[in-house]
Amino acid sequence: MMRDRITGFLKNLQDEICTGLEAADGSSLFSEDSWLHPSGGGGRSRVIADGRIFDKGGVNFSAVEGDMPAYISEQSNTDAKKFFATGVSIVIHPKSPMVPIIHMNVRYFESENGKCWFGGGIDLTPIYVVPEQSSLFHRQLKKICDKFSPTFYPDFKKAADEYFFIRHRNETRGIGGIFYDYLKPSAEFSTETLFTFMQEVGNAFLKTYLPIVEKNKNLPFTEAEKHWQLIRRGRYVEYNLVYDRGTRFGLETGGRTESILMSLPRYASWEYQYTPAPGSMEEATVSFLKKEIEWTEFRDEKTESR
Amino acid sequence: MMRDRITGFLKNLQDEICTGLEAADGSSLFSEDSWLHPSGGGGRSRVIADGRIFDKGGVNFSAVEGDMPAYISEQSNTDAKKFFATGVSIVIHPKSPMVPIIHMNVRYFESENGKCWFGGGIDLTPIYVVPEQSSLFHRQLKKICDKFSPTFYPDFKKAADEYFFIRHRNETRGIGGIFYDYLKPSAEFSTETLFTFMQEVGNAFLKTYLPIVEKNKNLPFTEAEKHWQLIRRGRYVEYNLVYDRGTRFGLETGGRTESILMSLPRYASWEYQYTPAPGSMEEATVSFLKKEIEWTEFRDEKTESR
Repeated sequence: MMRDRITGFLKNLQDEICTGLEAADGSSLFSEDSWLHPSGGGGRSRVIADGRIFDKGGVNFSAVEGDMPAYISEQSNTDAKKFFATGVSIVIHPKSPMVPIIHMNVRYFESENGKCWFGGGIDLTPIYVVPEQSSLFHRQLKKICDKFSPTFYPDFKKAADEYFFIRHRNETRGIGGIFYDYLKPSAEFSTETLFTFMQEVGNAFLKTYLPIVEKNKNLPFTEAEKHWQLIRRGRYVEYNLVYDRGTRFGLETGGRTESILMSLPRYASWEYQYTPAPGSMEEATVSFLKKEIEWTEFRDEKTESR
Repeated sequence: MMRDRITGFLKNLQDEICTGLEAADGSSLFSEDSWLHPSGGGGRSRVIADGRIFDKGGVNFSAVEGDMPAYISEQSNTDAKKFFATGVSIVIHPKSPMVPIIHMNVRYFESENGKCWFGGGIDLTPIYVVPEQSSLFHRQLKKICDKFSPTFYPDFKKAADEYFFIRHRNETRGIGGIFYDYLKPSAEFSTETLFTFMQEVGNAFLKTYLPIVEKNKNLPFTEAEKHWQLIRRGRYVEYNLVYDRGTRFGLETGGRTESILMSLPRYASWEYQYTPAPGSMEEATVSFLKKEIEWTEFRDEKTESR
């Protein structure tokens, strides 16, 4: 059964990612809580905190059954009353402001009348945007998408720009990535093909993130740079509590609060009208928090002009 | 005109409260930003930060005109298209975990067809609940309410319990206070009387809060107690971004983000499954974060049993 194969893949993905992150951290280990959902199924929440590299992070697996929420029936054009959903969801907050926050989610949804769809995405939130690294990250995602369809990357990149947008700040959460939802089997894409796409996205997590961690983890940083990290984490909190669909839906429908709010950072800060100094690296980062930057085509202007 | 008298009172209230808080702090002063609302009117945002007593706080005055939001038309049974709204809104985050966070809001709303109503409230969020102080706070609010109607305090206290409730944590934000909305002139209460009630609530801010500040500001505290404060502030952030109507409405309708999010603390923290130690003061505080505690009737059991 497809749902069992997907569930099996996701459990294994959670294991692999936790092992990979633990090895990268070299100090802290994930601790696990298993929990049951009131309406059926449950999950394994894994959390790492106060490591050498990672300040706080969660790698969540869940597979739950229950009554179909009204807004999903509407958005997905189904009149089914029951659903099954399984997914892996990750947010990692590193200690160093030189290492970006990362988020990844892959999920599979099935309604009782046999309809199913896939959703997910992966996006990066650097505290300091390094264009070369952002470009590489996007090129890696494009390469995966291009194996399936030339429309996947442009469509899902645009969807990430739209979705990971902090409207009240008029800025994107980070440099984006890909985001997709309600990806249904069709003449073009079988369930099998979409499952393969899910696997590729899931497996991209360690491949894209660990090299970024390695590259930046030993860079020195100042108190002021650490403070900027706390401010950016504050924006992350704003996004997750105000806009993130999974968070809001989970809190509203009585999901497991501690697992849902794993995504919040260990420390965050808010300052009234914090404004980066003109010409600063912080100001440069804000200038990159925009939709429609073609990261895959990014060229280093300094290198170009040499 | 009533709206001008109310606006005048509120501006003056903002001045008095800022002066009172500055005197209590003894170190930092409020800084002011005046701003204009896109659809008409504007406000004066005043912020204090990194003081001797207050870590971060905002005292906001605004008087804006605009198009009636749909949800207010519905809730208030009016088909008017334009509104006028003025209010003072305050959140204060002290440095010491021994001094409670306080929130106060008084507002007046008028629609173009001549209908008007008052709303507001005042509530306390101690990091460590001191029952005697919580009881005094509620008795002071009851005394004000009782001058107007014997139903005001019980009704508005209950409304505060319901409103300042963090559903996904199954706990109240603090020890509550009073909350009221859509309080309209009637045979029983003239606009004049309701305006007097607004003045009494507004003037209660310094009278109730400054003695609490004085009483607690010099108490010693540990690093662990400071950490508990950051955790509780995290809950405050959750409440404001997930549930607070003013915050959500303001962010959704393009209000001034920096003024709306003045309510967020300078520093906050989230820890996965933070659980107070059995028998600790933190655990005792959580036991008081419940609806329907009759604070005005609180008796110190230790004193009673002597």
